[in-house]
Amino acid sequence: MAIKKKEYESALDDLCLELVGMARWARAKGERIVVLFEGRDTAGKGGAIKAIHNCLDPRQCRVAALPKPSDEQQGQWYFQRYIQYLPTAGDITLFDRSWYNRAGVERVMGWASKEEVAAFFRAVPVFEKMLVDDGIRLFKYWLSCDQAHQEERFRERLDDPLKRWKLSSTDVAARSKYADYTKAREAIFAETHTGWAPWTMVDFNDQKRGRLTLIRDLLDRLPDTYVPPEPIDWPELGHEPLSEGFERLKPIPDFPISD
Amino acid sequence: MAIKKKEYESALDDLCLELVGMARWARAKGERIVVLFEGRDTAGKGGAIKAIHNCLDPRQCRVAALPKPSDEQQGQWYFQRYIQYLPTAGDITLFDRSWYNRAGVERVMGWASKEEVAAFFRAVPVFEKMLVDDGIRLFKYWLSCDQAHQEERFRERLDDPLKRWKLSSTDVAARSKYADYTKAREAIFAETHTGWAPWTMVDFNDQKRGRLTLIRDLLDRLPDTYVPPEPIDWPELGHEPLSEGFERLKPIPDFPISD
Amino acid sequence: MAIKKKEYESALDDLCLELVGMARWARAKGERIVVLFEGRDTAGKGGAIKAIHNCLDPRQCRVAALPKPSDEQQGQWYFQRYIQYLPTAGDITLFDRSWYNRAGVERVMGWASKEEVAAFFRAVPVFEKMLVDDGIRLFKYWLSCDQAHQEERFRERLDDPLKRWKLSSTDVAARSKYADYTKAREAIFAETHTGWAPWTMVDFNDQKRGRLTLIRDLLDRLPDTYVPPEPIDWPELGHEPLSEGFERLKPIPDFPISD
Amino acid sequence: MAIKKKEYESALDDLCLELVGMARWARAKGERIVVLFEGRDTAGKGGAIKAIHNCLDPRQCRVAALPKPSDEQQGQWYFQRYIQYLPTAGDITLFDRSWYNRAGVERVMGWASKEEVAAFFRAVPVFEKMLVDDGIRLFKYWLSCDQAHQEERFRERLDDPLKRWKLSSTDVAARSKYADYTKAREAIFAETHTGWAPWTMVDFNDQKRGRLTLIRDLLDRLPDTYVPPEPIDWPELGHEPLSEGFERLKPIPDFPISD
Repeated sequence: MAIKKKEYESALDDLCLELVGMARWARAKGERIVVLFEGRDTAGKGGAIKAIHNCLDPRQCRVAALPKPSDEQQGQWYFQRYIQYLPTAGDITLFDRSWYNRAGVERVMGWASKEEVAAFFRAVPVFEKMLVDDGIRLFKYWLSCDQAHQEERFRERLDDPLKRWKLSSTDVAARSKYADYTKAREAIFAETHTGWAPWTMVDFNDQKRGRLTLIRDLLDRLPDTYVPPEPIDWPELGHEPLSEGFERLKPIPDFPISD
Repeated sequence: MAIKKKEYESALDDLCLELVGMARWARAKGERIVVLFEGRDTAGKGGAIKAIHNCLDPRQCRVAALPKPSDEQQGQWYFQRYIQYLPTAGDITLFDRSWYNRAGVERVMGWASKEEVAAFFRAVPVFEKMLVDDGIRLFKYWLSCDQAHQEERFRERLDDPLKRWKLSSTDVAARSKYADYTKAREAIFAETHTGWAPWTMVDFNDQKRGRLTLIRDLLDRLPDTYVPPEPIDWPELGHEPLSEGFERLKPIPDFPISD
Repeated sequence: MAIKKKEYESALDDLCLELVGMARWARAKGERIVVLFEGRDTAGKGGAIKAIHNCLDPRQCRVAALPKPSDEQQGQWYFQRYIQYLPTAGDITLFDRSWYNRAGVERVMGWASKEEVAAFFRAVPVFEKMLVDDGIRLFKYWLSCDQAHQEERFRERLDDPLKRWKLSSTDVAARSKYADYTKAREAIFAETHTGWAPWTMVDFNDQKRGRLTLIRDLLDRLPDTYVPPEPIDWPELGHEPLSEGFERLKPIPDFPISD
Repeated sequence: MAIKKKEYESALDDLCLELVGMARWARAKGERIVVLFEGRDTAGKGGAIKAIHNCLDPRQCRVAALPKPSDEQQGQWYFQRYIQYLPTAGDITLFDRSWYNRAGVERVMGWASKEEVAAFFRAVPVFEKMLVDDGIRLFKYWLSCDQAHQEERFRERLDDPLKRWKLSSTDVAARSKYADYTKAREAIFAETHTGWAPWTMVDFNDQKRGRLTLIRDLLDRLPDTYVPPEPIDWPELGHEPLSEGFERLKPIPDFPISD
């Protein structure tokens, strides 16, 4: 049964508060946090990322959603363009899709050769171990979703003009490859579910519940160290609050809403 | 009177739809759109930006909220670090604060010298004209807000642990400089409210209404050219929708909510 | 008559010394220096740049030789990709070709439309004035060269395997456009030889002499302010100089030359 | 016995020719080549790099001489800022100092902690193996030089105004740490002289001979595959070569040399 909006919002507020505390801890200790979001189209990666990002200081928590590689990038070491988005001390990067593209969409769509995928699988555990050994806290989430829900969400994107831009021709192709994606995902788990960088699968058939589950899990796997906010001395204003005074320009008329 | 949540959401949905159409037009025609958001702390720049950004494809619409300049950047041409965020054809950049920092916060806080501010004022109209002459559509919004509201929002940030991170020691200093900011703003208007890059002031005492007003105005000042979405051929699936099959990893337990 | 190698080297050494002094001044005062090198293929831009660059600290003096623009860059403001190479305080940028490409090679080869060239000509004087007003010291050199010399140098590139890589198919096309380039150059001068950013033409029929002429002129147009090198306390070593001691690895055998 | 200038130049020309051929092969095959240059101050890294770089197309062969890290970079994964200079397909990067700074200068000067150096040594072989496994051709050269020569070169930098900028206060400190550097180098070899990324030591007591030795070795370790230059059709000009015609601007007077 789908979670109710009110319950969702109330639970999210609580988690948000914990995220804020976690972020304060990360900044105070110079922690670097990387969270990968993977899953089928429509699984809910963007929404989950937004739910976290909206709680935090955008100057601390960045979203990395890489466009398709330029010619120059295509000739580089595969991980090179992702690496530049790794966080500095105190920061958090949320990857909306990640280096796993190679073994996911690129493999399923036939854009990467068998050899490239094999090389990727050899490299990933080593690459991720380097990051983890360096002190980066790396979390990898896979958002799962049945095709019935995927179809429903595709349909919504097709029909709802607000969401139409989310739909691309790759999505059409993806529909007939549902099972291939499952297979690709299992191969990814087989090769890259390591002790130092394990995968966590979250059921996103109900996206709201999925977000709560994911954030709860993320928080549970980070130290729960309370760092008090920096105290701020906040004196009385000492005078009546001032009003805006307009000389050269005045505000334009308000958006009309019948009160 | 504050706008009601329901009315706000319904009106915002309508505007969102128009924004989506506008973005489709921008992409189709290779338009470049730049929107600056300026205003006091707590005025509501971040919220207004988020309202727009949430409607659009994050790969098309980017938010530029620059951190404080590095040593290297401090030695460069003042506009240099902003310029790299100007959009490419088809894209939109929303600046959360902008080059006007020099004549705003930097001036009021005494971080920029009188000469630097004067030089800035000489440069800005020329700089912006270059962008506009090059075809960039540049919009400059100033969000106004009385001190009573500012105080209330500061207080909220102080008290609400979810918002505490938004509060910095600069904010404390800002309180005693309310009138100085007004003066700085009027100087900015005097010097940079040009025919090719005019300012628009929007009353953000009610932030929700302010957002609607701003977005409505932005849309009204862009051509209302309908570009149909690319048609997508969407065949029947042709089989029962598949379910996720889990082998190596199963989803973790759902976030518990008493249904 | 061509300058003799010895005379060239001796004169260049003297100029080099002055360049070093100038660079010390630039660093001490936080000056920013930009030098553009334009001219036909084979005119000698690269050699002139190398002559200057070889005298100076490569961490202070950078060469900007931009590759052809990426798709993303093509959609941006034309000057955007050049701007990121402008120097920070204390630094020097030598542009091997520059934004004048638009009115030079792009125009002659038909890669830029008439309108684009016209827009470029409207923008350049304003753009350069902004940089100059900001304190950047901007120098623009045009290296001239008769076709007889150009042919000779092309022939050398064709025949000398060491120089063969300098020759491209664009060069072949350039030969039949010698007069068009002259015309393009005169248009550039007509539109962009301004009081704040004048052009200087240097005869590079004799490249060695041309380099000396150019560097002499550049130095003459910069203040001749002596800044003493930072004194360094240089005590006696206090012991016999040590020798390299090799344990794990020894040097490989020397390149064999019959002494 | 020091090599004679003429012999050096003639031998270098031959090697240059081979480098050009190698670079053509690299471009044709999409090879990526990385060469690290390490060694004491004054060993001759810069000169060796210049000798190679001067033979090649600067758009293909780049020098990476990184400035000291910014605050943001200091908080990042140690290798992150080096990685962005790794070459794309067909290109060559020459590193003037490299990630080995951590175990070299940083260790000797006490800027890196024991733990950091230990962590670096654990990471390097893995990191380099990743690059090599990805197909990057990685070469690591260590330039050795006795203290007598180092002292002589320091003295030259101190006395010769053309070279004075090469001397810094770090150099002064380095003199008393000659033996420490030797020790650091041996530790580097002990930990990072691997089968996939071995070190090569070259005697640079005679810098000219050292350069020849290094380049010869580099060439010997790359495949000697001949790729013919692209044929270029070079028709007769068909008319008398044209002369530059000057209208708006004339060349400035030549640099005066008594012929």
